[in-house]
Amino acid sequence: MQLITIDDIEAAAARIAGRAVRTPLTPCLWAADDRPLWLKPEQLQPIGAFKIRGALNAIARIPEETRKKGVVAYSSGNHGQAVAYTAKLYGVPATIVVTTNTPQVKIDATTRHGATVVVVPPADRESAAAEIVATQGGTLVPPFDHPDVMAGQGTIGLEIAADLPDVEVVLVPVSGGGLIGGIATAIRAKAPNAKVIGVEPELAGDTAEGFRLGRKPDWSTDDRARTIADGLRSTPSDLTFAHITKLVDDVVTVTEDEIRAAIGVLATRSQQVAEPSGAVSTAAYLYRDLPAGRTVAVVSGGNIDPALLAEVVTAAPAAAPAAGASVGRTARS
Amino acid sequence: MQLITIDDIEAAAARIAGRAVRTPLTPCLWAADDRPLWLKPEQLQPIGAFKIRGALNAIARIPEETRKKGVVAYSSGNHGQAVAYTAKLYGVPATIVVTTNTPQVKIDATTRHGATVVVVPPADRESAAAEIVATQGGTLVPPFDHPDVMAGQGTIGLEIAADLPDVEVVLVPVSGGGLIGGIATAIRAKAPNAKVIGVEPELAGDTAEGFRLGRKPDWSTDDRARTIADGLRSTPSDLTFAHITKLVDDVVTVTEDEIRAAIGVLATRSQQVAEPSGAVSTAAYLYRDLPAGRTVAVVSGGNIDPALLAEVVTAAPAAAPAAGASVGRTARS
Repeated sequence: MQLITIDDIEAAAARIAGRAVRTPLTPCLWAADDRPLWLKPEQLQPIGAFKIRGALNAIARIPEETRKKGVVAYSSGNHGQAVAYTAKLYGVPATIVVTTNTPQVKIDATTRHGATVVVVPPADRESAAAEIVATQGGTLVPPFDHPDVMAGQGTIGLEIAADLPDVEVVLVPVSGGGLIGGIATAIRAKAPNAKVIGVEPELAGDTAEGFRLGRKPDWSTDDRARTIADGLRSTPSDLTFAHITKLVDDVVTVTEDEIRAAIGVLATRSQQVAEPSGAVSTAAYLYRDLPAGRTVAVVSGGNIDPALLAEVVTAAPAAAPAAGASVGRTARS
Repeated sequence: MQLITIDDIEAAAARIAGRAVRTPLTPCLWAADDRPLWLKPEQLQPIGAFKIRGALNAIARIPEETRKKGVVAYSSGNHGQAVAYTAKLYGVPATIVVTTNTPQVKIDATTRHGATVVVVPPADRESAAAEIVATQGGTLVPPFDHPDVMAGQGTIGLEIAADLPDVEVVLVPVSGGGLIGGIATAIRAKAPNAKVIGVEPELAGDTAEGFRLGRKPDWSTDDRARTIADGLRSTPSDLTFAHITKLVDDVVTVTEDEIRAAIGVLATRSQQVAEPSGAVSTAAYLYRDLPAGRTVAVVSGGNIDPALLAEVVTAAPAAAPAAGASVGRTARS
């Protein structure tokens, strides 16, 4: 299995510069003294999630004549928005296959970019996208199982290492594995002493189980769909799982209550709106026994149902967040 | 009246680098096509507001022997937190005078940094701080009426001009005038064609009135305390008003309902938590007839009462936000 390289990621960074937001690391004053925490706020990207990085890199790499025929994507939401947004940028048509359990807020955001949206049951999304490509033409932009998509997501790791060269722990949400595969490739090259730890909802903890057992997981779509974290219901491909087994130090899980509490902490103590999928890394920081040291939690997206946001910001957290305060230093930027 | 200069601001930028977050400009896909909008998310700063910039610059400028004797500040909240945080950074004592109408969330945040907090009625805060300096020693760090504080806040304008050199409109919350005075100084020097427009709550619209009449306003403390925007209840000093009259193009006001609606739009469509004071610039973008063109709204802070946040994210906006979508370009970063 050919893994992506740091060169792929550096080329991607040059390709997406000026189109993706160069997000800062933001220090959390509420963090524990022995585990200072910075957030990487990817919800600040144009479509509210990191997916714009992979879509921009992958679509930039399609030859112009081919790109004109359009792009097709299947996605639980944010990747679809990212492909629709990027297609509009290039002036080419986009068809986005979403699933029946996709939040309406994400479907609305996709159609606003001028894309055609097709709704199918969760298990049918890949075959539906393949059929559209076969019958109508266009290029499929997969949500994670593609080296160009992974390299685009990996630019987050490049930026973390540039801003905090002595980072010790990087916490990354895991779904299909494109985000963590890309970030781990960059961190191994640029901050080799840092541990990269994946975080999943317990209810979609297939990769954590597979990582422990040393084989690609095979949880059913229905099992993975139980979590509130609607962006973390995918399962790794051969390509992404190869990156995870080779480059990632651990994969841990968090509960649904812990995810809700983390959204509340992020909104009320760090002024950041995270969707459930984006909050799992902070949930792991708050509620799991992780290695000490300078920690970065990747907040992968913020497209949350307003009613859920309202609910969690006024609820008491599931357990007390880490005490103490980390003061006096922001990342280089 | 000696105004601050672009050199003062560039020196401040060097002084605060690595301690304040270098915030990006984040594009708003929900903005109108003829008025693309970027946010400058200062709620991402360590204390959740831009005030860290001025406090860092002012305290860095105090000679070390003097600084050891401690710092004193009066503040409706965010400036107090900024001075407390910076004092802890330098290992010197801080005494913060707050007022009886300061939200508890801001008082708690200040004491967490190890500062001594003194609570007095709004009208007494300046005299109480002066008395502490007279009896206990230490250096007063005023919230806006000081060239070093203004130069620190002005670094926001430097960053806006660097990231979006062809910016056409900059919207800035106005209270004591230190933020807009600093930003306007930087914008005049680096993006001279851009209009700088101040925004106030109608209920604390003293500067808008003073700007129109050409004289420093004199609204009572009680009148200015009526607005929900607790960070915008101050009134300009001679120093800041001189900057406003010379460098600012207009000062407009927004209603309390418009401020609430803007907080909701920022949270649900831009994934950003703004406090009422931080949302007035976006409220003006949404609900006032402003010049067209590439617009930046400074989101000055995000220390909001969670109950208020919950209320506004589920409420319908006061009027429909601008339609259309602006796509395809982020600021340079």
